[in-house]
Amino acid sequence: MAARSRAPLTRSLILDAIRSAEQVSRVELAQLTGFTEATISTTVRSLLREGLVVEVGHSESTGGKRRTLLGINPHTYFGLGLSLDYDQLNYVVTDVNGATVAHLVTPGTGDTSPPEVMDRIVAEISEFVRDSGIDATRIIGIGVASPGPLDGRAGVLRSSRPTPAWNGYQLRSALSDATGRHVALENDATCAALGEHWINRGPNPHASATIYMADGIGAGLLIDGSVYRGASANAGEIGHITLDIDGPECSCGSRGCLEVLAGPAAVVATARDDAILSQRLALAGVSTRQAFSRLSREAARGDEACIRLLTSSARHLAMAIVTLSNLMDLDEVVLSGPAFASVGALYATTVQQQLAQTAFMRQVHPVQVTISQIRSQAAAIGGATLVLQSHVTPHIGRAAQHAGHSPPLAASR
Amino acid sequence: MAARSRAPLTRSLILDAIRSAEQVSRVELAQLTGFTEATISTTVRSLLREGLVVEVGHSESTGGKRRTLLGINPHTYFGLGLSLDYDQLNYVVTDVNGATVAHLVTPGTGDTSPPEVMDRIVAEISEFVRDSGIDATRIIGIGVASPGPLDGRAGVLRSSRPTPAWNGYQLRSALSDATGRHVALENDATCAALGEHWINRGPNPHASATIYMADGIGAGLLIDGSVYRGASANAGEIGHITLDIDGPECSCGSRGCLEVLAGPAAVVATARDDAILSQRLALAGVSTRQAFSRLSREAARGDEACIRLLTSSARHLAMAIVTLSNLMDLDEVVLSGPAFASVGALYATTVQQQLAQTAFMRQVHPVQVTISQIRSQAAAIGGATLVLQSHVTPHIGRAAQHAGHSPPLAASR
Repeated sequence: MAARSRAPLTRSLILDAIRSAEQVSRVELAQLTGFTEATISTTVRSLLREGLVVEVGHSESTGGKRRTLLGINPHTYFGLGLSLDYDQLNYVVTDVNGATVAHLVTPGTGDTSPPEVMDRIVAEISEFVRDSGIDATRIIGIGVASPGPLDGRAGVLRSSRPTPAWNGYQLRSALSDATGRHVALENDATCAALGEHWINRGPNPHASATIYMADGIGAGLLIDGSVYRGASANAGEIGHITLDIDGPECSCGSRGCLEVLAGPAAVVATARDDAILSQRLALAGVSTRQAFSRLSREAARGDEACIRLLTSSARHLAMAIVTLSNLMDLDEVVLSGPAFASVGALYATTVQQQLAQTAFMRQVHPVQVTISQIRSQAAAIGGATLVLQSHVTPHIGRAAQHAGHSPPLAASR
Repeated sequence: MAARSRAPLTRSLILDAIRSAEQVSRVELAQLTGFTEATISTTVRSLLREGLVVEVGHSESTGGKRRTLLGINPHTYFGLGLSLDYDQLNYVVTDVNGATVAHLVTPGTGDTSPPEVMDRIVAEISEFVRDSGIDATRIIGIGVASPGPLDGRAGVLRSSRPTPAWNGYQLRSALSDATGRHVALENDATCAALGEHWINRGPNPHASATIYMADGIGAGLLIDGSVYRGASANAGEIGHITLDIDGPECSCGSRGCLEVLAGPAAVVATARDDAILSQRLALAGVSTRQAFSRLSREAARGDEACIRLLTSSARHLAMAIVTLSNLMDLDEVVLSGPAFASVGALYATTVQQQLAQTAFMRQVHPVQVTISQIRSQAAAIGGATLVLQSHVTPHIGRAAQHAGHSPPLAASR
């Protein structure tokens, strides 16, 4: 077995400390990270050469000599994120600080075949990068957020969304071959969680769930700021937890799942069963997303039938979030994804109330519920984050896995 | 902010590597851990002085000079574990390798007041340690496994188990003051998970849940071998996930929880409602545990009424485990705790079938279900493990939290 060097971890920890501090001296870096000043000096020299770290000024004199302050040059590298969705493709380019420097929305996959959609995506990426004015060589990769489940190791989709034709599609190799770029694939809920937290770089909650509602419902889980993926990168399938053990069958093989009881498709199906409502809102022939949007807009305008439908959906989601919270002992829930447009407040209120009344740990600590400010872009931003993180601060993405692992010998016994 | 030294982490990683390898040279240690040979040399020298590491032989010559092999001296330190329970107190002493060197079972708390029980516990610990023949100064602390929820930071129980009188009891300070020893407090399911895995030191599964069924049902969660505690050390409350959104009210404030539908107390209550069954098994006037044991024994002997009751309970537990698995993407489930005695196989079969039929990830990977071999002792062994781990290999317990944290500046902005 080859010796593992600690240099990449050192670089990653130092970069993360510089980015969080925004401006920091070498001496402060040593104090903050626990590395020796010699290690700091060597690593910083290499980062200055690379251009990722720059000297941004000097500290005010406090008796001793003035110190050079270091900061990140956020435009050294960029990540390109794409969220794959039936109704809408979102492309973003973000810099190292997570700022979105370009954004493009194009029609979703619809029912077009995966290879045809992929041809369009490749053309759109090329045009998008050209129009953004960014040096294309500085884009270090493409992060694709797609509906789960998926086989991240093989880069293959395993979901019937956007449509069943995508189940089994070798998305990573197709996109990588066509663009010549590094491609990362991650489920959209996990990407949304990353996107939300890369942007709101406050103190990390211990355990945070980002509920991502598009056509389905998933959850992206962060533990102390690191993505929790589980055994096969398919954790957080909150849409497929049982809320009614004797409820209707779900396509997943189980019964009474959240999605089949209260997901956007279930809400739309119920609305369509009501001939008067369906006609009034012209729900025939439009996609689930469009129909759900109409219901949401009408609910926001005070339509009682729509409010009733969405309140029932929110109540079911709230019960599922209580279950997730009781299992993971959450301290934060973020509601994100396109389906929360117009009705974020209705869902957030219901979820917050349910948690306050029934979460097992409500007497020990509250669970904070917030509505995303980047709903439709969150997954794409997270995709971009993913490739940037793997290049700039890989310890964040790998930390939980890395640190908790058995030592190598244990695995090879 | 004071500089953080990396020395304790280094010591912890090196110790874990030595223990896992069983016998290892300094050169191999450097290769395995990624530390320089100088760091290995300094740390090993200090561990040899402490006595925790010993020279155990020499490697066979392979051309070069023979190398000294290092190993752990498991009897340098011991941990004392105690599981608090209505029916039975379990005490164990384990060595650094997790081997149980002494075990004592005494009557449970019953309805006796906490201070009276604590007086007995202090006396029993003193006698137990004396009878075990172990040098008492080598016992580095007491790990108490108690029913959750609890406030680990304050060392206070927050559960109505063993009885409501224990809710709010300052267990840690009471035991620490009376014994003069370091006391750690952790919920029994988490302890059981630690106990199971400290003993079966194979490769760690990515995501493992130990279902601990005593009077209640909890889950201890391990991620890559490290305990997952959540925001307030109360993760894994599988007994309080909703399986029937319109089901009966639960004491937790929610509805249709696993425990109220199918936990041992619910099963026993249903059996007692059946006057003939209740009389036949003499269920009147015995504890929930005793009644559940009688039902289990009769089921194992083929009694159809008992099999029906327990199969229904197992089916509910299986659905709850599927939910947990869909959220955490588990690859392992261990059934542990005293309530699985006699009926472990019935529950394991039902859980395995349900996972194979309905777990969301069943086409990507299986979830392995096993029955604990140390059911009644698991929590106490885990308690002992807890104090040993915090002394010998603290990085395992703290890793996920430590590594994933924001750098200090992020939190202080």
